[in-house]
Amino acid sequence: MARALRLAARGLYTTMPNPRVGCVIVKDGRVVGEGWHERAGEPHAEIHALRAAGAAARGATVYVSLEPCSHHGRTPPCANALIDAGVARVVAAMRDPNPQVAGNGIELLTLAGVRAEVGLLAAEAHELNPGFVSRMTRGRPWLRLKTASSLDGKTALNNGQSQWITGAAARADVQRWRARSCAILTGVGTVAADDPQMTVRDFDIGRQPLKVILDSQLRTPPTARILAGGALVVAALDLKERRAALSAAGAEVLVLPGADGHVDLPALLVELGRRGINEVHVEAGAVLNGAFLAAGLVDEWLAYVAPKVMGDAARGLFGLPELSEMAGCRDFRLHDLAQVGGDLRLLLRPL
Amino acid sequence: MARALRLAARGLYTTMPNPRVGCVIVKDGRVVGEGWHERAGEPHAEIHALRAAGAAARGATVYVSLEPCSHHGRTPPCANALIDAGVARVVAAMRDPNPQVAGNGIELLTLAGVRAEVGLLAAEAHELNPGFVSRMTRGRPWLRLKTASSLDGKTALNNGQSQWITGAAARADVQRWRARSCAILTGVGTVAADDPQMTVRDFDIGRQPLKVILDSQLRTPPTARILAGGALVVAALDLKERRAALSAAGAEVLVLPGADGHVDLPALLVELGRRGINEVHVEAGAVLNGAFLAAGLVDEWLAYVAPKVMGDAARGLFGLPELSEMAGCRDFRLHDLAQVGGDLRLLLRPL
Repeated sequence: MARALRLAARGLYTTMPNPRVGCVIVKDGRVVGEGWHERAGEPHAEIHALRAAGAAARGATVYVSLEPCSHHGRTPPCANALIDAGVARVVAAMRDPNPQVAGNGIELLTLAGVRAEVGLLAAEAHELNPGFVSRMTRGRPWLRLKTASSLDGKTALNNGQSQWITGAAARADVQRWRARSCAILTGVGTVAADDPQMTVRDFDIGRQPLKVILDSQLRTPPTARILAGGALVVAALDLKERRAALSAAGAEVLVLPGADGHVDLPALLVELGRRGINEVHVEAGAVLNGAFLAAGLVDEWLAYVAPKVMGDAARGLFGLPELSEMAGCRDFRLHDLAQVGGDLRLLLRPL
Repeated sequence: MARALRLAARGLYTTMPNPRVGCVIVKDGRVVGEGWHERAGEPHAEIHALRAAGAAARGATVYVSLEPCSHHGRTPPCANALIDAGVARVVAAMRDPNPQVAGNGIELLTLAGVRAEVGLLAAEAHELNPGFVSRMTRGRPWLRLKTASSLDGKTALNNGQSQWITGAAARADVQRWRARSCAILTGVGTVAADDPQMTVRDFDIGRQPLKVILDSQLRTPPTARILAGGALVVAALDLKERRAALSAAGAEVLVLPGADGHVDLPALLVELGRRGINEVHVEAGAVLNGAFLAAGLVDEWLAYVAPKVMGDAARGLFGLPELSEMAGCRDFRLHDLAQVGGDLRLLLRPL
């Protein structure tokens, strides 16, 4: 199963909106076939593995990182293919959270006389597909908030300068996290200040994540670099002229007014989920960071921390209402920690 | 030598103002004696080791974490004792930075026909005695700045609340760093806000570090808990009445005016060095943290970081003049990193 998980990870940058899945077929203690899902519309991991195994699949044990599907999607159900191949046993790391499957794959196998089990390395399997699981179970993507700050929690000087807080290795590492995401989300403040491209660079994944700009009043300049190749601009007000200008620049404009004159963030995430977005990568300023955090919508905080001091006059990480009690702090637990060049990378999840 | 270094570390909390030193005597591939310096006025590491070795010291090799002394201090020179014992060879990890020794110990040994070498595990030996080395070579103590903050760089809410940012394990760990210090330094702002004791607790080391309060205008209340058992209050102004009140409360008051109405920080460190202070442990607020950092006087930053967010309205770590260029940031390198309970502990040194 550990091997199946490693194979699944080969699809990290390409399977979306599908999950990353790996499969290993073992017979008489020997691997007779393996495979992974590479791209939506192409064969699932099990099919690749069955093809590799050929006749050796008969009577074999199949390790697969996600329950085999039981429904006709763009490809026929894998459960049937496994039955047809005559495998003796299927071990799935986790149930498919897709409500169209959700145990049906296992049931189909069991009814056909295949021994089927679920749960081996389940936690590790979940880690492969936080976005797919989130979309299937909560109807919204997994939201990963990326920040780069000094150790005293500053993201830019008061005059806006921020190049570079973290080193080249950390900035290259960020590209990998962008690349595994279905969407990169930022705010109009960042667009106005830095005119970023928000693309995956130095890394050919054959696609670019959807660029999403939160822009309550449609202040994004139609010439902004982020609009190149298309983007989704999300507003709180329907300002027809600005909307037309952005549409003419190739952007799709969506109006999702919230209660407070800002964009309705939960509604936006539901809409992104509906569009098949699994993982959203947020790179924004303190206002938007604070808004997502205050709304309880941050699933993961990817924090790059440079061992430097910028001083209290510099700009902070999270714009939040002033707290009067320590109990109001937002608590995280450290999920992963790494040194990237001279910087630290922390992956945190809300407690 | 590794063993000698570990022995030396047993004196971490007690040898001051002397250095921590360990010694291992080896003969025919067997340890025949070992020892470490425990307390000033008591025998040095070499003497303990020689006593343990007895007649076996003759012809033996001596590993010692610091060059044997050549001068009469409170105890007679160790170099002579080693010669008298008839040892064949002495390997010292580093030269004694004390100008009264500084190679003389090695010379004395060599002249007496003992093979003497210096430099084995020198970096590790330095790490045992950063304060002693600093005092001997720079005439001032090693300054360690301790902070406890959220990951967004906040040390307290805007209303001053800060209990507790870090967890119990981190707070217990701080006691160890206080305990190895010769002095604990804070500012009058911290005294006024928290009325701390600034003592070593839960830990019997048979002494308490000198408490030092930076208090330009002598605003420390004579009833402050930090004054119990004595303290050094350092002012920039000689305000006779307040001075008398503090003296009556058992404090020593020192007036060291700097150019800007604040205490002259470099002069203070020289004075502390003169008093035999090796390591100064600073626990202060953003103003004093910033002042030490701006003056280039921070040798080490001991940063406890809790995986939580307090928001931009909360209080920051370093009060520094606003920067206009990223080049003005203070850069550190990570020297050590540990997880302490649910928090991170970073040890950083200026680049």
